[in-house]
Amino acid sequence: MESQVLPPETLEGWFALHQVFLADRAAINPWLQKCGADATNQLEGAWQAVAVPSAGGWSAAAQLIGSTADIMLMHFRPTLEAIGDVQRCVARLSIMDVLKPALSFLSVTEAGMYHLTAQLSREAAERGDSVGGAAYRTELARRLDVERESAHVQRRLYPELPAGLPYVCFYPMSKRRNADQNWYTLALDERSRLMRSHGETGRRYAGSVTQIITGAIGFEAWEWGVTLFAKDPLDFKKLVTDMRFDEVSAKYADFGDFYVGKLAGPRHWLDELAQG
Amino acid sequence: MESQVLPPETLEGWFALHQVFLADRAAINPWLQKCGADATNQLEGAWQAVAVPSAGGWSAAAQLIGSTADIMLMHFRPTLEAIGDVQRCVARLSIMDVLKPALSFLSVTEAGMYHLTAQLSREAAERGDSVGGAAYRTELARRLDVERESAHVQRRLYPELPAGLPYVCFYPMSKRRNADQNWYTLALDERSRLMRSHGETGRRYAGSVTQIITGAIGFEAWEWGVTLFAKDPLDFKKLVTDMRFDEVSAKYADFGDFYVGKLAGPRHWLDELAQG
Amino acid sequence: MESQVLPPETLEGWFALHQVFLADRAAINPWLQKCGADATNQLEGAWQAVAVPSAGGWSAAAQLIGSTADIMLMHFRPTLEAIGDVQRCVARLSIMDVLKPALSFLSVTEAGMYHLTAQLSREAAERGDSVGGAAYRTELARRLDVERESAHVQRRLYPELPAGLPYVCFYPMSKRRNADQNWYTLALDERSRLMRSHGETGRRYAGSVTQIITGAIGFEAWEWGVTLFAKDPLDFKKLVTDMRFDEVSAKYADFGDFYVGKLAGPRHWLDELAQG
Amino acid sequence: MESQVLPPETLEGWFALHQVFLADRAAINPWLQKCGADATNQLEGAWQAVAVPSAGGWSAAAQLIGSTADIMLMHFRPTLEAIGDVQRCVARLSIMDVLKPALSFLSVTEAGMYHLTAQLSREAAERGDSVGGAAYRTELARRLDVERESAHVQRRLYPELPAGLPYVCFYPMSKRRNADQNWYTLALDERSRLMRSHGETGRRYAGSVTQIITGAIGFEAWEWGVTLFAKDPLDFKKLVTDMRFDEVSAKYADFGDFYVGKLAGPRHWLDELAQG
Amino acid sequence: MESQVLPPETLEGWFALHQVFLADRAAINPWLQKCGADATNQLEGAWQAVAVPSAGGWSAAAQLIGSTADIMLMHFRPTLEAIGDVQRCVARLSIMDVLKPALSFLSVTEAGMYHLTAQLSREAAERGDSVGGAAYRTELARRLDVERESAHVQRRLYPELPAGLPYVCFYPMSKRRNADQNWYTLALDERSRLMRSHGETGRRYAGSVTQIITGAIGFEAWEWGVTLFAKDPLDFKKLVTDMRFDEVSAKYADFGDFYVGKLAGPRHWLDELAQG
Repeated sequence: MESQVLPPETLEGWFALHQVFLADRAAINPWLQKCGADATNQLEGAWQAVAVPSAGGWSAAAQLIGSTADIMLMHFRPTLEAIGDVQRCVARLSIMDVLKPALSFLSVTEAGMYHLTAQLSREAAERGDSVGGAAYRTELARRLDVERESAHVQRRLYPELPAGLPYVCFYPMSKRRNADQNWYTLALDERSRLMRSHGETGRRYAGSVTQIITGAIGFEAWEWGVTLFAKDPLDFKKLVTDMRFDEVSAKYADFGDFYVGKLAGPRHWLDELAQG
Repeated sequence: MESQVLPPETLEGWFALHQVFLADRAAINPWLQKCGADATNQLEGAWQAVAVPSAGGWSAAAQLIGSTADIMLMHFRPTLEAIGDVQRCVARLSIMDVLKPALSFLSVTEAGMYHLTAQLSREAAERGDSVGGAAYRTELARRLDVERESAHVQRRLYPELPAGLPYVCFYPMSKRRNADQNWYTLALDERSRLMRSHGETGRRYAGSVTQIITGAIGFEAWEWGVTLFAKDPLDFKKLVTDMRFDEVSAKYADFGDFYVGKLAGPRHWLDELAQG
Repeated sequence: MESQVLPPETLEGWFALHQVFLADRAAINPWLQKCGADATNQLEGAWQAVAVPSAGGWSAAAQLIGSTADIMLMHFRPTLEAIGDVQRCVARLSIMDVLKPALSFLSVTEAGMYHLTAQLSREAAERGDSVGGAAYRTELARRLDVERESAHVQRRLYPELPAGLPYVCFYPMSKRRNADQNWYTLALDERSRLMRSHGETGRRYAGSVTQIITGAIGFEAWEWGVTLFAKDPLDFKKLVTDMRFDEVSAKYADFGDFYVGKLAGPRHWLDELAQG
Repeated sequence: MESQVLPPETLEGWFALHQVFLADRAAINPWLQKCGADATNQLEGAWQAVAVPSAGGWSAAAQLIGSTADIMLMHFRPTLEAIGDVQRCVARLSIMDVLKPALSFLSVTEAGMYHLTAQLSREAAERGDSVGGAAYRTELARRLDVERESAHVQRRLYPELPAGLPYVCFYPMSKRRNADQNWYTLALDERSRLMRSHGETGRRYAGSVTQIITGAIGFEAWEWGVTLFAKDPLDFKKLVTDMRFDEVSAKYADFGDFYVGKLAGPRHWLDELAQG
Repeated sequence: MESQVLPPETLEGWFALHQVFLADRAAINPWLQKCGADATNQLEGAWQAVAVPSAGGWSAAAQLIGSTADIMLMHFRPTLEAIGDVQRCVARLSIMDVLKPALSFLSVTEAGMYHLTAQLSREAAERGDSVGGAAYRTELARRLDVERESAHVQRRLYPELPAGLPYVCFYPMSKRRNADQNWYTLALDERSRLMRSHGETGRRYAGSVTQIITGAIGFEAWEWGVTLFAKDPLDFKKLVTDMRFDEVSAKYADFGDFYVGKLAGPRHWLDELAQG
């Protein structure tokens, strides 16, 4: 493999599943009557077991706003197996009688080591060493271990549900492979430079917007998922606009549908669905 | 960030939600019979609470013409929370038993400060100052405050439902990021020039067509919504045609589906749906 | 606006609505039984009121052939309001119990004044006058009035249902705005030349194929509708093939779905739907 | 019209309709019980009237393999009217209670006279004559009549159902009109050369694969239909792969969905659908 | 045919069918009750007959994870006829009452002989011989026979279900035919070089990921299917990412939807579907 178009090393943490559901409006009133008085308590108990799983990770739910879909669930889990488990638990929630799946997005938290990979391959070249050779691989493993243990990377691989940022925005994205806009044929140094500059845009919103970046290559047609949390939903517009002018997005990014909502537990879902 | 590709500063006002509904024709007659004689009065009362909300903003409704969809609702509200509230109120309108959601479009009224941003960044460069530095930001904040208070910008951020313009046209649009037609890599001066010229086309229709421009980046896959009001629906064709020849649209714009209709309250919806 | 990319002046006549319906095959037999013996007469009476409206214009119906859809209705009316009226009348036809809307296309009959616009702007330039100035506008208004009254243009704006041409073909189209194939950045003289040559192709089929061109910019995502009538349906293939080699289509046109059928009244619809 | 981009003359024969149906699995068992013991005989009788129509042409049916759809019907008829007739006959087959239309493709058998058109236009140019002039048209008519009567062209315009080739493959295709890959702006000589070479690929499969080429311009969004018959279904893969490397396909062709199956009459459809 | 753009010779083995199903959640509980106590045993027995067919080949099933679809079945069989047989057997499994087909993908195991074809055509050119001539074809047949019998190719044409690799990933792909990224106009030598380098990426995952490549040209709109088996599902992400940077994928590949799951028999499907 040519050194210049080397893939970046990445570190992965929790598997992630985003699920979007549509309410079957015609079915809601009969269902609410069938559920009876204790429905909310039962649903809250069942959801609590999903949200704080004994196996690690967490789940959160949002009521979507300004969408024809109604509820988005986000799950982070240590293994793909545990993602399968939570899918089964969700399918058994009583409220699923009136919710129909509209979107499912499988990914894994990811920290792209663009800078490190570029640096190590440059050092290897200077030593007259080959990228991917034994010396390179030993040094790479050592450096990735260091990176993985850093607080910064741990936060990206094992993110907490941010406090005080109740609004949520999720969207999938990919990098282009067009003749004149091909991310996958750019030299690694160039990709490293573009990602660094892109990261600076994100850091200007530190405190007001928290991002979780998840990688989906091999799992979905889209290549990444972006989950944003904010105190002020206008910040979604400002951040995404600023980023769209970053060269990496302006030239190389394709975006899918956007889902915007507010964190909310089962009591709020039922309130949302109750047909007055 | 390179000064030339600086994003424009924008001012935002009310959040906006456009909702399009399809009538379930087979369900209408049984529903009308179930509703009974007072159905119209009850629906009008419930709609009045939506159309003139105590929290500020307003809602309006249109019967679509020449579409397989039937009703379009437009809501403007001070907060995203209030958009969520109006969605819930709409979901509880009795008529929703026979209307199915076909489209939902979330955005926020927006005034793009292309000219001001270009001017301030030019002045900063002349002073040897950096764009985004403290002096720049102080001056920017001062000037944005002035702009925000101007009558012109207030009309764009907090638009009234225009009087005497009963026909409505809504469509989403985006700017292209293709290799040879990339809005997001144009220098700010160029974007400012193109938007100014585009604005002149719109102003030639002053009095006969009123526009509300809403920004959707971060909320939708489409980047903007355009809502037009006219006395003569032929003016939609004339204005949109003229604009399509503006360089900014001819080269850089993508358009979605168009929805055309006429403002109409619940009494007209029921008349529309009544199956003779 | 640069003179070279001036939009063409256009003249508009009747609003047009094309509606395509799918039969709900499972519902047909029960419906036919419910309708009773007088169903055909009642449907014919109701359709007659649609086809020959007191407000002007006309409607026609075709049974589609070689399509999964079944019926296409075409309506021409003096106003958008009257299009709304005919939509309501159609929705109330008894047969709508078993027909589901599959397509709706709103447009207006249009005569593009490419040659006149090019000529006037050239004359203005030779006088040292500005396009769009007072002198230009006065002369333009005068000349458009003359054109509008010509028999040729009257036939395009207020077309009759052609006699002796029972086969119908409808399709939507747009002009491209790609980097290398952008109709909207061509000089007006070039567009005028290409449209004139395209018109010659159409005129070679005079007598055997009649066209109705309707403009949809501002009303639909597609920019034009083309409705063809022929005695021999093979002529649809020959004409559309010839036109596809015209430079204006070969380089600048995008086409949507094609709907082919034969003019037929309610008696034939019922015969078509009757399940033996 | 420029001589170089002259459309090829074409000869047309039978109209063709391809219909693909999906079985409604939930409805099959109740339907089979309702049909009773004589269902197969009745269906075979009704199908026989479709397959060997008194008006000329023929129909054949295939069970699809490796598809979510179940049955494909192919009809060849002398007129579009007769296509409408067979559609009505098919809609009345008892089995249509459990089959839902998934695709309909209208076209007409076509022999493209690329070589002849190129030759005649060259001869006209050598005589100093105009293409499309009286002399050209007289000679063209004479030569087309000769071609039409040739056994080779008769086989293409009025194809028989090939014997001993039970596997069927159908797909639609179009020629591109992109800036750098535009079939419709190539000189006729170049198109003639590319089609001749493409024909040679097909002839290498003579005996093992039979093709029916049908033209759909003016009838469908796709421009052609290709129906292949083979003894060994692997030959579909080999032939289509070889053709994809032909310059005419590699640069200028777009392909739609592929439908693969095996010829089978009603007795086999019922066997296929019977739910054990 | 120009020697440089010669298609690669390919060897084919078993036909393959991938089927993806969605569970009809509302229908599951009534169905489970109807099935009774012996449902699992009966389903396991019926599935066993599918999974280990007397006619040769095999079938396997996976529960999908992180998808709105639920079950993926993979079938490998010696003939297309046998693929039709297994489709019928699957349609008759009792569980199909509650599963709806969502995807069907027909292909055949394939070993692309890029290197051999390039070598033989080079040798033919050196001999002054023509590619496709008698001498070439004799030598080609001899060499393909040798290749076909090699253990390496036998494993690709008649793959076993790999042991110890329980996770599965399936996706379709095609090669591009764009003006600047056209696989089908590359010289065979270049394609051979790119495929060899691509193969090296795959071999770096030997032991941890097993691939089955199936060809779908002539059977599907997509040109290939890729089925991966892994012990650690993160390896799907790593392998597919690495491959996306290979020049052959970066420039010439288009990918469809990805389906990820874990091998599981009927007992697990029922456990998955049981609604607590």
